[in-house]
Amino acid sequence: MSEPGPADRRRVLSLRTSRMEAFSDGIFAIASTLLVLDLAIPATSQPDVGQRLLEQWPIYLAYLVSFATIGQAWLGHSVITEYLDRADSILLRLNLVLLFFVSVLPYPTHMLAEYFSSDNAERIAVTVYGLNLLAINGFISVLWHYAVAEHLVRRDNSEAGVRTLTSKLDPSLVSYAVVIGIGLLQPKVALYLAIALFVIIPFRAVIRLVRRAAAARRQKGGLP
Amino acid sequence: MSEPGPADRRRVLSLRTSRMEAFSDGIFAIASTLLVLDLAIPATSQPDVGQRLLEQWPIYLAYLVSFATIGQAWLGHSVITEYLDRADSILLRLNLVLLFFVSVLPYPTHMLAEYFSSDNAERIAVTVYGLNLLAINGFISVLWHYAVAEHLVRRDNSEAGVRTLTSKLDPSLVSYAVVIGIGLLQPKVALYLAIALFVIIPFRAVIRLVRRAAAARRQKGGLP
Amino acid sequence: MSEPGPADRRRVLSLRTSRMEAFSDGIFAIASTLLVLDLAIPATSQPDVGQRLLEQWPIYLAYLVSFATIGQAWLGHSVITEYLDRADSILLRLNLVLLFFVSVLPYPTHMLAEYFSSDNAERIAVTVYGLNLLAINGFISVLWHYAVAEHLVRRDNSEAGVRTLTSKLDPSLVSYAVVIGIGLLQPKVALYLAIALFVIIPFRAVIRLVRRAAAARRQKGGLP
Amino acid sequence: MSEPGPADRRRVLSLRTSRMEAFSDGIFAIASTLLVLDLAIPATSQPDVGQRLLEQWPIYLAYLVSFATIGQAWLGHSVITEYLDRADSILLRLNLVLLFFVSVLPYPTHMLAEYFSSDNAERIAVTVYGLNLLAINGFISVLWHYAVAEHLVRRDNSEAGVRTLTSKLDPSLVSYAVVIGIGLLQPKVALYLAIALFVIIPFRAVIRLVRRAAAARRQKGGLP
Repeated sequence: MSEPGPADRRRVLSLRTSRMEAFSDGIFAIASTLLVLDLAIPATSQPDVGQRLLEQWPIYLAYLVSFATIGQAWLGHSVITEYLDRADSILLRLNLVLLFFVSVLPYPTHMLAEYFSSDNAERIAVTVYGLNLLAINGFISVLWHYAVAEHLVRRDNSEAGVRTLTSKLDPSLVSYAVVIGIGLLQPKVALYLAIALFVIIPFRAVIRLVRRAAAARRQKGGLP
Repeated sequence: MSEPGPADRRRVLSLRTSRMEAFSDGIFAIASTLLVLDLAIPATSQPDVGQRLLEQWPIYLAYLVSFATIGQAWLGHSVITEYLDRADSILLRLNLVLLFFVSVLPYPTHMLAEYFSSDNAERIAVTVYGLNLLAINGFISVLWHYAVAEHLVRRDNSEAGVRTLTSKLDPSLVSYAVVIGIGLLQPKVALYLAIALFVIIPFRAVIRLVRRAAAARRQKGGLP
Repeated sequence: MSEPGPADRRRVLSLRTSRMEAFSDGIFAIASTLLVLDLAIPATSQPDVGQRLLEQWPIYLAYLVSFATIGQAWLGHSVITEYLDRADSILLRLNLVLLFFVSVLPYPTHMLAEYFSSDNAERIAVTVYGLNLLAINGFISVLWHYAVAEHLVRRDNSEAGVRTLTSKLDPSLVSYAVVIGIGLLQPKVALYLAIALFVIIPFRAVIRLVRRAAAARRQKGGLP
Repeated sequence: MSEPGPADRRRVLSLRTSRMEAFSDGIFAIASTLLVLDLAIPATSQPDVGQRLLEQWPIYLAYLVSFATIGQAWLGHSVITEYLDRADSILLRLNLVLLFFVSVLPYPTHMLAEYFSSDNAERIAVTVYGLNLLAINGFISVLWHYAVAEHLVRRDNSEAGVRTLTSKLDPSLVSYAVVIGIGLLQPKVALYLAIALFVIIPFRAVIRLVRRAAAARRQKGGLP
């Protein structure tokens, strides 16, 4: 294969982002829905079914954390593709690595649910799980930094907007790394929930909303 | 992160609805298709397989109700996104909560199928199931009310159209709440089917259709 | 809810077809991929694994027929949506019924794989399976006839094109009905493969292609 | 059905590529995510769970190879549809055959994971697996050659670009065929990983990137 000229190379490598979005949405959606298959149902023969169901709370918690993490990753991914103009060949491959870590998440989630009672096994499961969450969030960041470095973001985006998003995607990485360290001493999956919820619940937006609702009530304004 | 100006904030938070639609369609589709994995097949070694299959009717009923509920939720969701102009950050998060309840539905469905023979366990299963259906329908309503309150609906929609849709999405909530109460006394999943079918089968449209077909037959008009 | 005017009603009920397409593609894709979960793997402890795998041919056949049927239904559905201009509320509901039968197909497929050795159970499985295939093809036809009757197809489609498609979607229905009848006497799933392949393999197109390739070879024409 | 004129025939057969893309993305996404269900979790009752997990490395390797192969096929498929203008009826059917082989891949992957310890069974599994990978890559090539031969690619694509892509899609076929031969003597799935990674990791692009980054560091240029 002879080296093609620069204009030609661009045409071969530069792709619409629509298929990258559709494939990613598919994997995000399937990974988060497959998690439900891990929720076990106690046998009816057992004396108190309701009690048994309540005792399974760690399984439900792991399910919730995994769903929240995938949801958070999807939010970040959506914002990135909103800024993207075109995808190049390397971006698609980095995206595939991200999707690999998303699609594998049901495995450590299942492991966590299985190993919650055993002390040693739980430590392994929480660590593997934390590393998986870290990898997902890490590759969301890598994707964004690559897109900005390669000028794949749309021209009409102000530098301020780009910098704001950068400052939003990076800090959660540090939190996950810290929690993995803590997890080795004190394996509690609940800590991951804290991070995921912290990113998912838009505290500042909620506050703004409450304020605006209060203002609107004072003004008594209807639909525009 | 310093407070950005109002125009800038809009740019960071306001997103196309296409990815929200694709991700939601993915989860609706997967949740409704995963339900089929719960349908058990009696062993061939059993004397009368046909009889065994018929005796499983509660499992089929639960499957049908769940599929109809997801279908109904998808219909409501499609109508909402048809009106939507842009999505903001909170709408996406409310949508994630809705999708969480959609993706978890196979679990209580499976539970219902498993616990139908046992009396006490059935009451628990029917209640959990009803709460799940209520949550799905509740968040469809929340999504719509939020979109209207935040002026995310398209400008070219008349107030009448918006009000009509509002009056259509809300009343089923009450029905589900009532049925959950009844279910505690008399756990019958069939009641949920009644609600789902009431929303899915377009009675008024069917009547209109029958009338129009009759009129067309009188006029003997062909294709335009 | 007061009766809205005709223009208003159109706005509430008439929807873009994009979400109907995405949701349908999701269910078609998932149903056809879930089928693979039914393919069992013989234990390694068994003496001749290769022999065991070959003896499972009925399971592979059922898998192939189901995949081909969903593929055929997807082809028909794609052609219909290609003609569609807008979807109305009833069309979406008819589409939901079609998708219900598509998403349930893995169940009779699994049943068929399970019951192939037993004579009586096989008859039940083949009949249920045939009815499911009939329902899928039937609702594809219903969808098309409804869309044409309600003038939902695009104005720029000639009547000839519409009539050609109609004549293509209907006859397979009769074949499935006939095969279900035969299946009661002689349960052989292979017959369904014949129908599915007959629709999927484009005999007339293949002939045309072979002819054109021969003509091109004579002309020795390159890329345009 | 009477033979329609050429213009009419085009209208019936020529379709937008959007649904073909959505359906394919769905199947690619689901097949790659279903693979995770094959990853087994050792029981906690076993003495050293961590050791057990590490001993499962062949299962993880097979998972990785399958994910990488589907990722590679998706990359090729995306590039093809980027060039496509319209789809015709035969292209859609060839695409269905490709998707069949993609959706069946979890089966030989599972077989591989199951049979890794047994010598004879492993040879069968590696061969079936290799044939499946070959079929996927083969039909990607067939799809592209058909689209070029039938003039379905967009007019604005230079002949050079089309030829470059052709030279990129074909050679991996030979590698797979060679590895299947080797696999009969020495069944090692690792060889497939080599091919998949060779296609997925964009060595030439990485080198270019490193060079450009070095150049940029020298120039100290910021965002445009």
